[in-house]
Amino acid sequence: MKALQLTEKNQTPVLSEVPAPKAEKSQKVVQIKAAALNHRDVWIVKGMYPGIKFPAILGSDGAGLVDGREVVIQPGINWGIDQRFQQKDYHILGLPENGTFAESVGVNEDQLFDKPSHLSFEEAAALPLAGLTAFRVLFSRCQVQSGEKVLITGIGGGVALFCLQFALAIGAEVYVTSGRPDKIERAITLGAKNGVIYKEADWSEKLEKIAGGFDVIIDSAGGEGFAKLVKLCNPGARIGIYGGSNGVISGVSPQLIFWRQISILGSTMGSDQDFEQMLAFVNRHKIIPIVDTVFPIEEGALAFERMARGEQFGKIVLKVS
Amino acid sequence: MKALQLTEKNQTPVLSEVPAPKAEKSQKVVQIKAAALNHRDVWIVKGMYPGIKFPAILGSDGAGLVDGREVVIQPGINWGIDQRFQQKDYHILGLPENGTFAESVGVNEDQLFDKPSHLSFEEAAALPLAGLTAFRVLFSRCQVQSGEKVLITGIGGGVALFCLQFALAIGAEVYVTSGRPDKIERAITLGAKNGVIYKEADWSEKLEKIAGGFDVIIDSAGGEGFAKLVKLCNPGARIGIYGGSNGVISGVSPQLIFWRQISILGSTMGSDQDFEQMLAFVNRHKIIPIVDTVFPIEEGALAFERMARGEQFGKIVLKVS
Repeated sequence: MKALQLTEKNQTPVLSEVPAPKAEKSQKVVQIKAAALNHRDVWIVKGMYPGIKFPAILGSDGAGLVDGREVVIQPGINWGIDQRFQQKDYHILGLPENGTFAESVGVNEDQLFDKPSHLSFEEAAALPLAGLTAFRVLFSRCQVQSGEKVLITGIGGGVALFCLQFALAIGAEVYVTSGRPDKIERAITLGAKNGVIYKEADWSEKLEKIAGGFDVIIDSAGGEGFAKLVKLCNPGARIGIYGGSNGVISGVSPQLIFWRQISILGSTMGSDQDFEQMLAFVNRHKIIPIVDTVFPIEEGALAFERMARGEQFGKIVLKVS
Repeated sequence: MKALQLTEKNQTPVLSEVPAPKAEKSQKVVQIKAAALNHRDVWIVKGMYPGIKFPAILGSDGAGLVDGREVVIQPGINWGIDQRFQQKDYHILGLPENGTFAESVGVNEDQLFDKPSHLSFEEAAALPLAGLTAFRVLFSRCQVQSGEKVLITGIGGGVALFCLQFALAIGAEVYVTSGRPDKIERAITLGAKNGVIYKEADWSEKLEKIAGGFDVIIDSAGGEGFAKLVKLCNPGARIGIYGGSNGVISGVSPQLIFWRQISILGSTMGSDQDFEQMLAFVNRHKIIPIVDTVFPIEEGALAFERMARGEQFGKIVLKVS
């Protein structure tokens, strides 16, 4: 079969002919119709994940066919039964197991879910990991409610966009930040109330002026800006953290945290229950994932380059078959 | 009546003869038998609270008699009905209303609760504000469970000691930090498993060696040490923050927070429901507050000085009548 194979560190995966996977016990082989990239895949290519062996087939997100059934794959493996946190051996499809950037992949039967019928294979492939991460941080952790004021930082990435769509779907009032004005414009087109450019020195003052305080803030940056997020919190606010691209958090006032009864809630990926609830939510609200671009798998290198440049607004999808 | 009156900033309150309070509508006048100091009282004396008028009678904690009924006073006023956070006009008895450092005080009827029958007036007076704060941060916010490993920083203060007693009462395994070895020894006598001196550079490494990781950490310091508390967290851990004596929090890894699904939970004082549940808990588990010293109200100045020096282990109580 064809697969995008990673043969050494810092090299873009190349399309190769490799043996097709065989189903091990309690496994099924999925014929992949479409797959999607995550930041994780780019970081693995850059050698930022431990334990990688070459050659490897990456890819956590995929949708396709099993015995004629249209399926989407749940990428999380071994979360365990505790809803609060993952077990030690929890990991994501696509490392160390071979992933979805291939014509077929072997996965456990309990990782297979019916593809939402309102979605194409490309749209369904865009859903799993980012949708799961967004659902857990927004609902399971921050318990966002209808009518609440929500801020989502760094709009344009897959998780941030699902947070926007999910929060809008339940009737929250959503604001965004981005490094680029065109991404804010697109978020407003999708239903966001407004947004600010976080590269401007007074972004938080501007945000306070246009929006007041926030009940829920979803952040994946951390860094110096985090202390300003805390200042933007209403009493009882929750800040969900699912990433830390700007590094360590500093300058945070404990007085604000305790006096305003703020909750700062770390969240990563999600449990099997989170995944099932996310899928049900997507079906109920007819959420359509934002797809930035669809590349044929033969042009996988271009997909990786676009992801690395951070230009995308929505998910970057590979059409496989 | 006699009262400890604060007549100007930075002066220790002095025993004075003042008019006795009259009950306004929906109020009762409590004949105070014993009162207790909080850090709050010392900070008000130092002029660190806004809106103080002179002369003022301080004091948030009190126990006494109303028409022969033995009562303890709930010091919180106007929390509101939302359990997540206090309303804007929430405040604590003892500023701006006259407080408990007097022979009598007027309070709303719904602030009166039966004194736990297993407690003396001095012990009951030691309970309200610190017990309420401890109960909310430990149970309502951090939801500590039997068998969990708990770390309480700065043992010796009123809230920290109630956290120790409450956590032990439900069967948690509790460790402590302090600036002084004698306070750690006393905490161990009360049931703590072990403790470390936070002034030693390697306190967190020592703690990790003797205790491993923690499921719940209760902190009122913040500052530089906070990042080390985050490193001591088990997956799914909760850190409750009810103070910030060491100032801003810096150097915290967002990666630890999201990967370990950590919750950092601000908490201050507590709701009416928290107070009722705290009293019920104290009655059920026959908790006896740790009283450091009892001064007659005539020696109130000595009580304030002891509090300001931070030497106490437990609550400093005034015997009023």
